[in-house]
Amino acid sequence: MSELVITSPSNPRLRALTALRRRRTREETGTTLLEGYEELSLALSAGLRPITLYYCPELMLDPTAQLAVVDDVAASGTETIRLGRAAFEKVAYREGPDGFLAVVRTRQIECDAVPLGEQPFLLVCQGVEKPGNLGAMLRTADAAGVDAVLAIDPVTDWGNPNLVRASKGTVFSVPVASGATTDSLARMKARGVTVVAATPDTDVEYTDVDYTGPVAICVGAEKDGLTDEFLEAADVRVRIPMSGKANSLNVATSAALIIYEAVRQRRAARAAPRP
Amino acid sequence: MSELVITSPSNPRLRALTALRRRRTREETGTTLLEGYEELSLALSAGLRPITLYYCPELMLDPTAQLAVVDDVAASGTETIRLGRAAFEKVAYREGPDGFLAVVRTRQIECDAVPLGEQPFLLVCQGVEKPGNLGAMLRTADAAGVDAVLAIDPVTDWGNPNLVRASKGTVFSVPVASGATTDSLARMKARGVTVVAATPDTDVEYTDVDYTGPVAICVGAEKDGLTDEFLEAADVRVRIPMSGKANSLNVATSAALIIYEAVRQRRAARAAPRP
Repeated sequence: MSELVITSPSNPRLRALTALRRRRTREETGTTLLEGYEELSLALSAGLRPITLYYCPELMLDPTAQLAVVDDVAASGTETIRLGRAAFEKVAYREGPDGFLAVVRTRQIECDAVPLGEQPFLLVCQGVEKPGNLGAMLRTADAAGVDAVLAIDPVTDWGNPNLVRASKGTVFSVPVASGATTDSLARMKARGVTVVAATPDTDVEYTDVDYTGPVAICVGAEKDGLTDEFLEAADVRVRIPMSGKANSLNVATSAALIIYEAVRQRRAARAAPRP
Repeated sequence: MSELVITSPSNPRLRALTALRRRRTREETGTTLLEGYEELSLALSAGLRPITLYYCPELMLDPTAQLAVVDDVAASGTETIRLGRAAFEKVAYREGPDGFLAVVRTRQIECDAVPLGEQPFLLVCQGVEKPGNLGAMLRTADAAGVDAVLAIDPVTDWGNPNLVRASKGTVFSVPVASGATTDSLARMKARGVTVVAATPDTDVEYTDVDYTGPVAICVGAEKDGLTDEFLEAADVRVRIPMSGKANSLNVATSAALIIYEAVRQRRAARAAPRP
């Protein structure tokens, strides 16, 4: 193939790439960066078609196999641009870049369009601040088969490169949406979804609740948790028992514990009747 | 009190502080940095006595209450040094410093000295690379009442500032130890501890195993998991069911799910007999 090769780290196209580290640029262009071979592979398998793929054979762990992926991406109509090592290292945002960096459309659906099955299973994150935590929760949502992840009153955007990275690319496979608290609560109620809110301020343990119907598992910001408005509107509040000195689990850990309790119950319910 | 005040960011004492960001310096001095009011408070309540406390009233959220903590620390014999804002910001390693930075002894016990109750409950991490993951696992271990966390064939040191930070100071409340794989396995076997290894390569689900006796929950490195040597020596291998496209949970999430399944079973066993 005839292709563009950039070797100068000061090339203007590369400046446009680093500009995508800013949220404002991501929101204005509706695009973001996806770095890493593994993350790109997952997103491709989820149907993502990058706008442009920047690659650097010198940095690839397995150039023979991985250049075949570049050819596949090019064959599907995506622009591919080869970078020299210095140029790639300039635009890469992770330490130890592996030669793959794509510009992709930010993927966010409207709340109305969230695909819900007969027994919706949602993860709702209110005001979560750290991109790494949202990314970890997306991995958990992917593994657990959650229908969609909803960020309400979001602090970060779904295109944040650290979120994309921490999600291992699952931000392109799990349906994600954003919304406001009041509106989101009203929609869940209208759909008959049981709103389960994680909070230390309850006597109900997370293992004592029925998650087999339509359910949304809801967690709040790292420091302050869910807002009073949210907690009052929730159908049930649950706590995770703690016996230590700090008594604060990471928000992504808390979400995972409740999500997997729901997975356990939902699988058991599907396997019923049991002897 | 008569105290030392440093305002120049180029003061040699401050250079010694930033040197502690290097593992080699931490290991040579047997000390590390503990930053943040919340983390320091937790470590103090766990009995930690800092060597030196650097503080900056101008950066404190609540100087009146927090300066009282400085006085308490000084009264217990710890050297306290007030820094000017520019000097403090030079030595702080987190964004948005809150005016508290302590030099503390790295706290690591010998494997032999790990305190084990009648029904030991251990978390074992083999070759885990990211300090943030080890920190998150320490928070989970604290909340779940795990007796000790053992890092085998460790890649990072317990004094790594990012680990200390991610642990929210629980690295100073949860007993931690380091060791080699073969030796650690032998010790666990000798103590009658059931070694439960997390791996995708088994049909046994993590909810189908009995954790009510002496047990060690074991997870491996982010990329490759537990080594073959470890998996072969384990008493039981367990998997977490996954139904997504990526099928990879974060290692700290995986550890939390298994640890809390053990918590659920151990609490139920203590509450038994049930009707």
